[in-house]
Amino acid sequence: MSETDLTEPELDTTQLDEDDRLKPAFVRAVLDAVEAGDAAAARALVEPLHPADIADLFELTPHEDRAALATAITDLLDGDVFAEMNDYVREDLIDALSATQVADIASELDTDDAVAIIEDMEPADQREVLRALDPDDRAAIEEALSYDEETAGRLMQRELIAVPEHWSVGDVLDYLRQHDELTTDFWEIFVVDPAHKPVGTVALSWILRTPRGIAIGDVMQREQTLIPVDMDQEEVALRFQKYALISAAVVDPVGRLVGMITVDDIVHIISEEAGEDILRLSGAGDGDINEPIHLTVRTRITWLVVNLGTAMLAASVVGLFQGEIGRFALLAVLMPIVSGMGGNAGTQTLAVMVRALATNQLTSSNTGRMIYREFRIAAANGVMLGTIIGIGTFLIFGNAHLAIVIAMAMVINNLIAGLSGVLIPVTLDRLDIDPAVSSAVFVTMMTDVMGFFSFLGLATLFGLGS
Amino acid sequence: MSETDLTEPELDTTQLDEDDRLKPAFVRAVLDAVEAGDAAAARALVEPLHPADIADLFELTPHEDRAALATAITDLLDGDVFAEMNDYVREDLIDALSATQVADIASELDTDDAVAIIEDMEPADQREVLRALDPDDRAAIEEALSYDEETAGRLMQRELIAVPEHWSVGDVLDYLRQHDELTTDFWEIFVVDPAHKPVGTVALSWILRTPRGIAIGDVMQREQTLIPVDMDQEEVALRFQKYALISAAVVDPVGRLVGMITVDDIVHIISEEAGEDILRLSGAGDGDINEPIHLTVRTRITWLVVNLGTAMLAASVVGLFQGEIGRFALLAVLMPIVSGMGGNAGTQTLAVMVRALATNQLTSSNTGRMIYREFRIAAANGVMLGTIIGIGTFLIFGNAHLAIVIAMAMVINNLIAGLSGVLIPVTLDRLDIDPAVSSAVFVTMMTDVMGFFSFLGLATLFGLGS
Repeated sequence: MSETDLTEPELDTTQLDEDDRLKPAFVRAVLDAVEAGDAAAARALVEPLHPADIADLFELTPHEDRAALATAITDLLDGDVFAEMNDYVREDLIDALSATQVADIASELDTDDAVAIIEDMEPADQREVLRALDPDDRAAIEEALSYDEETAGRLMQRELIAVPEHWSVGDVLDYLRQHDELTTDFWEIFVVDPAHKPVGTVALSWILRTPRGIAIGDVMQREQTLIPVDMDQEEVALRFQKYALISAAVVDPVGRLVGMITVDDIVHIISEEAGEDILRLSGAGDGDINEPIHLTVRTRITWLVVNLGTAMLAASVVGLFQGEIGRFALLAVLMPIVSGMGGNAGTQTLAVMVRALATNQLTSSNTGRMIYREFRIAAANGVMLGTIIGIGTFLIFGNAHLAIVIAMAMVINNLIAGLSGVLIPVTLDRLDIDPAVSSAVFVTMMTDVMGFFSFLGLATLFGLGS
Repeated sequence: MSETDLTEPELDTTQLDEDDRLKPAFVRAVLDAVEAGDAAAARALVEPLHPADIADLFELTPHEDRAALATAITDLLDGDVFAEMNDYVREDLIDALSATQVADIASELDTDDAVAIIEDMEPADQREVLRALDPDDRAAIEEALSYDEETAGRLMQRELIAVPEHWSVGDVLDYLRQHDELTTDFWEIFVVDPAHKPVGTVALSWILRTPRGIAIGDVMQREQTLIPVDMDQEEVALRFQKYALISAAVVDPVGRLVGMITVDDIVHIISEEAGEDILRLSGAGDGDINEPIHLTVRTRITWLVVNLGTAMLAASVVGLFQGEIGRFALLAVLMPIVSGMGGNAGTQTLAVMVRALATNQLTSSNTGRMIYREFRIAAANGVMLGTIIGIGTFLIFGNAHLAIVIAMAMVINNLIAGLSGVLIPVTLDRLDIDPAVSSAVFVTMMTDVMGFFSFLGLATLFGLGS
């Protein structure tokens, strides 16, 4: 597939705000030109932009104006722009283009970016685009599509440089200079044995600094991190992060080199995977602000209905004590404090544990230590909060029994919050269930139910409301 | 500073579990050897490990055993191990070492990694370590320490390759081959003018593929993304991500090249910055499981006490309706459902907005559109949830007024949740207050207070409990 220009214009940053995003006035100027039918003016504005900023322009343009914008600046819409675009916005645009146009764009890209464009299309459209591609490009993309989504096989590019161990540095230089069709998007060279299995890697800086006569086998680094082709992209990202990799060889089940993943394809995944925990924990799905609204509503309402179930369960616990509440309504005033504070403390522990699990910091070697750690934190916080609320209750209402009951309930519910905040995500993780998705429901259920039960139950034991 | 070995042993992965973390049995075996005083056995076990895994070994070792482990395997503790280590664990170990030992380790590292080790030390210890360094290393590190923490100046390494525009590719190759003292940790070469201002970059793959006689000015890419030396590291990370950079030139206020940042230093920051939102939103501070426990307790209790204040405010709203609750205790049973569901819906919106703000996806160009989007989502969810709970209440309690009241309160509180979930973080962001840290308190306060008030207030209007 093709190469980028050697001499691109200087990056024009005058249209960007301090966050590197396009200024509203600029977006408006482009859309005004499009609406006025002045495609030339729109093109003149957009042309100096970096592909990532053209992609942004589409994200910042309301859904209904995107097709008109695309028509006005079609010739600026190259593969790089699509590669940088948000998934939903890209789907929007791809729907508006013909199969031949999509094939033209895909053929400009490395396999991984081409696959990202094609994988979300309807099967019929996909076949049409594949038919319009060169046989070589088609074969590479079809092979990539044969791997599961979100695996190394989908992420990798097939374009890479692999050389035999007996070549000299000079052989490598000559090979690279003589073969124009090779990719330029590489940072390391892979050294392979006759069976095409990787035996080492050489960073390009080493090749540049080594005299021509030296054998590549003598400068290569034998220690290397290989990525199995079926590895999940989250694990790939963690491996890149842990070993500070720039690129890595991808190998098939028998160990042959089949592709390469570079770190620039990984940074998006690291950010997405780290950011999605917060969204999953709150039940906001993938939380993409470009998602069609009916899909967002569906994701969020599902989670809310599940939570409605647990809220009703907690309410039924309160229902057990209706008699006491009727006789002593102050119990109803104070009970949300106990359950709410338990919920807050549980969420703190949960957030820490979900991150520690996601980054592989919480492992079987230190789980016991972490449970004990959270128990001590919960005990310390529970005693402090219980003391504050107990004293406060006594000062305001002058009822010593009520003060003791709420203080005790606060300690109990903090311990329950701390323990469920660590045990629930760890257990779900052991069962191969994503703790970020499911933990919060269970933790909130525990802190609500036990918050109400401990407070109202202790109140009953102490004869309050009787 | 020195270079890494060319020929390292094959990566031994037999001690790693499927998450690339050390197996508990292995950690135990090492610690048993240390405890038995058999340093040779411990060294033999640890020696085949990658530096990142030796760093992990210390994280997985309980605090009290770390000093003994360090003593047993001192000669394996090189700079790379420290560079990979968790901050708290590193501080732990550095405290146990002498200034000369720390200086030895720091002198092996690139500036950025050396600074990371030295910046957290006590001023007196810092001075002692700096005195023990080579004058060159000392000057570089002192200059780095003169920049603010978490800025590009701290992150960058001074070791880079810069060449004048008129050099040929052959000149560059000869220069690199003849100067052994140059860094090998580079992926691009910077082209500078006589005032040492960057005018372009060349990826190493381009140099390798270009004949010796071509001028470097003809193959360089003029479009480049420069990083100001005082830029916040979060903005640096977003810029690397947006423009898919491998390395970038860092420039001082007059535009001179002063350093270079490479993507491997950025992936940690991308992951940290993306992951810390979840921790801040829950009030768990930086949520590091290696943090000393008293610091963790202090961070969390601060947040919990603030939340206790808002919980008491919400309780005082309930207190306004004690009379009604006393006459009709069912109100107390159902009211937590309304406030709790509002809290859940508000947290969903908040999580989405905090991520969109952190990734610069929510900008002044699309804020209005997002507020309207969340309003429609909240309305849809509110109507659905209100219908479910209204019908459920009618079927269970047979009270039509109560059913209408809870359904209406549910719609109102969902709208409040949706609007405060977007308006509060956006407003805080405009005021330059981190929305991840402060939003949740305000959103929960709104949904609790308004949940109780709308439900109990409507109930009073409808004559329930009178």
